[in-house]
Amino acid sequence: MSSAPQQTTLWYDGQDNCLKVIDQTRLPFEVEVLALNTLEQAADAIVSMKVRGAPLIGITAAFGVYLSVRTDSGSLRYACESLLRTRPTAVNLRWALDRMYNSLKDLPEQQLAPAALELAQRLLAEDAAACGAIGDFGLDILTKLYQQKRELQGQDTVLNILTHCNAGWLATGAWGTALAPVYKAKLAGLPVHVWVDETRPRNQGASLTAWELAQSSVPHTLITDNAGGHLMQHGQVDICLVGSDRTTSTGDVCNKIGTYLKALAAYDNLIPFYAALPVSTVDFEAADGVSEIPIEERAADEVTHVQGIDDAGQLRRVQTSHPGTRVSNYGFDVTPARLVTGLITELGVFPATVQGLLSLKIQIR
Amino acid sequence: MSSAPQQTTLWYDGQDNCLKVIDQTRLPFEVEVLALNTLEQAADAIVSMKVRGAPLIGITAAFGVYLSVRTDSGSLRYACESLLRTRPTAVNLRWALDRMYNSLKDLPEQQLAPAALELAQRLLAEDAAACGAIGDFGLDILTKLYQQKRELQGQDTVLNILTHCNAGWLATGAWGTALAPVYKAKLAGLPVHVWVDETRPRNQGASLTAWELAQSSVPHTLITDNAGGHLMQHGQVDICLVGSDRTTSTGDVCNKIGTYLKALAAYDNLIPFYAALPVSTVDFEAADGVSEIPIEERAADEVTHVQGIDDAGQLRRVQTSHPGTRVSNYGFDVTPARLVTGLITELGVFPATVQGLLSLKIQIR
Repeated sequence: MSSAPQQTTLWYDGQDNCLKVIDQTRLPFEVEVLALNTLEQAADAIVSMKVRGAPLIGITAAFGVYLSVRTDSGSLRYACESLLRTRPTAVNLRWALDRMYNSLKDLPEQQLAPAALELAQRLLAEDAAACGAIGDFGLDILTKLYQQKRELQGQDTVLNILTHCNAGWLATGAWGTALAPVYKAKLAGLPVHVWVDETRPRNQGASLTAWELAQSSVPHTLITDNAGGHLMQHGQVDICLVGSDRTTSTGDVCNKIGTYLKALAAYDNLIPFYAALPVSTVDFEAADGVSEIPIEERAADEVTHVQGIDDAGQLRRVQTSHPGTRVSNYGFDVTPARLVTGLITELGVFPATVQGLLSLKIQIR
Repeated sequence: MSSAPQQTTLWYDGQDNCLKVIDQTRLPFEVEVLALNTLEQAADAIVSMKVRGAPLIGITAAFGVYLSVRTDSGSLRYACESLLRTRPTAVNLRWALDRMYNSLKDLPEQQLAPAALELAQRLLAEDAAACGAIGDFGLDILTKLYQQKRELQGQDTVLNILTHCNAGWLATGAWGTALAPVYKAKLAGLPVHVWVDETRPRNQGASLTAWELAQSSVPHTLITDNAGGHLMQHGQVDICLVGSDRTTSTGDVCNKIGTYLKALAAYDNLIPFYAALPVSTVDFEAADGVSEIPIEERAADEVTHVQGIDDAGQLRRVQTSHPGTRVSNYGFDVTPARLVTGLITELGVFPATVQGLLSLKIQIR
């Protein structure tokens, strides 16, 4: 265990010749850095959610390809295929592995490993830059909302942002997606406050987002996933900002389970609801999110058991329901485009419509 | 500790001369029966949620009045006032205490205690009968839905019911409110399956509803509060049944926090959403639920800490967020009447409208 560089969750350690990642299953109680040396270790880190978040699992997979081909130059295809199977919902994984495979497949053997490392590093840097740009475009929206609110309510006004799950720097190369505008707002001196959805079953809001925001001294309040609707009814939420694991060509947003419920409440209370995402999460092949995006089903014990520290500070799991209780545990849901105010990307803010996605696509090419 | 009579959560023990209740804070791991001998013990049982559920806290308060006046015949007013302060949202508490006070206040001293016990027993019996009738009216709805579904999907069809929190026999004199139709359906041989919302922060779904349904062998599946919207989008929910802690004269339903989010999802997916409630939970004085109903705020540690059993079977609490994290913890929210398909009461099923509540009021008087 060593201490992590500030606000970086993954980096390649050129001295130890391995990938270093913060073990997100031990946060917020322990900041433990793992060294990943092999394809198997990289794949396991994704499956066990030691690394998670759509952009980050794409980056981790890219480095996983390098860890594989540096010892076995014939393993490129196998490495890509096995990493692709680790998580089904986020499209970044496929996007990153496609980029790795297509760039590397025709290279001579001796160039393969250095090229793989260089490309993985580039994907990491590109994601960090994309998230920084998302932050800037999102900051424009937050600034305008804040100015409007201040005109109505006066100098002491605070802008209240609700977020679900963790779409911060822990989930990306830097900055985060949904949280990037929040960090940029904090740096710009905008008075912001974040409502942090606990995000059952894995509690990424309670364990990751609240911790992240505390590291940057962003004011925040932890709430249960049940509470957001009530807060919106009572004028306590000015904007919802969430990430996206896959966005369709029609603007449907697939994100952590429960996102759809918050979008419904935002719509019902005329509150802007934005998804923030690098364009790598857009799946232009998919049209109808509800019927076309595969939704990961995860283990029952994520629902029946909860991890935390006991009074002695020891990390423990307790079971919250009667042993033998049957469980269903879908990891994501789809928010229909009609509930989404806009998509904040590194190329600008686009409407969550077919036309919006078409104009985004033109900018990419 | 003794074993409880089946499917009764509260009774007056004439041998021990005390009120007996199941301690709901220890379920599903231990079925422990508490003996309440004094006003203070009754009030504490309500505050600490050893007894909970709108109808049950009204009944407990009624017995609490008896426990007080049997030792101090001058304490009627004080007992009613202190019990009224235990929980702010459910209107049954006021309703039960008003009935006790108005019936007892002019009685001669020596008649007070026996009359208080008799009236508390009557409230308990009335609630049990009301919940039975709610079950019968709700069963009509479930039967029709099932028949329609079977015509479309064939013999093997199962009716999928989603419920939030616990509105079963643990929360009432018998049967429950939202679960009463489920138990009646099970007895009638209707193939039902219940999606049980975990119901953070206190996990009444995971710890109480799942346990209750298992006692009666009703098929059920535990889900996180985030999951219901996804299930509704995918045709996995045929009807939502919830309880109500307070219902306004316009049909707004105040119930456990998170109910509003499920009602929004039901509406968005054209799924019937019913609240089941004894008429004692209707507050004819209140019109606009969102602005008029006081919403209880509860302790932060309900959100930051989770109770369960460890691997050795010992009941423990663990902390799930970084120490010092700020928390907001509202206990209830209000589902606007426009999202409610109907109100299932012991007097029949009424529309959640001003006219529906007016016709209900006429039947009461």
